[in-house]
Amino acid sequence: MENIFTDEYFMKKALQEAEMAFEKGEIPVGAVIVVNNIIIARSHNLTEMLNDVTAHAEMQSITAAANYLGGKYLKDCTLYVTLEPCQMCAGALYWSQISKIVFGARDEQRGFLSMGAKLHPKTTVVSGVMANEAADLMKRFFVSRRK
Amino acid sequence: MENIFTDEYFMKKALQEAEMAFEKGEIPVGAVIVVNNIIIARSHNLTEMLNDVTAHAEMQSITAAANYLGGKYLKDCTLYVTLEPCQMCAGALYWSQISKIVFGARDEQRGFLSMGAKLHPKTTVVSGVMANEAADLMKRFFVSRRK
Repeated sequence: MENIFTDEYFMKKALQEAEMAFEKGEIPVGAVIVVNNIIIARSHNLTEMLNDVTAHAEMQSITAAANYLGGKYLKDCTLYVTLEPCQMCAGALYWSQISKIVFGARDEQRGFLSMGAKLHPKTTVVSGVMANEAADLMKRFFVSRRK
Repeated sequence: MENIFTDEYFMKKALQEAEMAFEKGEIPVGAVIVVNNIIIARSHNLTEMLNDVTAHAEMQSITAAANYLGGKYLKDCTLYVTLEPCQMCAGALYWSQISKIVFGARDEQRGFLSMGAKLHPKTTVVSGVMANEAADLMKRFFVSRRK
């Protein structure tokens, strides 16, 4: 039987979260955290609504997943996020020792790969999953803001 | 008239916060955020109590200060923190565009200077303020945990 729980399956859920951010006038980034094919956290960027630079989608999902698990380490968890994490979120993911990160579009300017933050050695990374969809959403957002 | 509002004055307040973390069994790091010599946020590490890797002293103070100011940018603010910020906290401070960071002890292993995260070009940094006091508190904590 075909496994429906692919990286694309969960990235679509993260993209739905990103769409929700878009509708609120937030930079459209969404995230989910998955363990054993179950989504235990879902979130989207809320920095404008909360007036809080720390309210990135990833940060909220890390906190929510730890709450769900009753422990701060995200062992056997996978984060799906539509955009490459920034150095703040990469730093939080480092502390969480999360098993896997799957992100969509690159963020050449503010992503952790360019800025220099490091992930935990236990963490594996997959990039480029539904990257075009995530990047298109970002482009639509910034075009709509310029009008 | 002598200015009592020195970096040492506010670092002592951050050290008091660190002592409160120590008493709770948390890694003893404390922080305050100051604008025009008024403390608008004070916090200490709560990662164990909250089961949340994001609950560093700095992160809590950034959120609290933004709440107080009604805006997410910490212009004209100074963060006093007893230990060199990690890459997560440096990343959050980057987004906040905070004016000044004063930290006490170096964190050679997990501090942002070794790990590679970057601060905002608008941010100035002063290090080593009451560093011995902050480092002694950390040493006392880890000795007490080994017993």
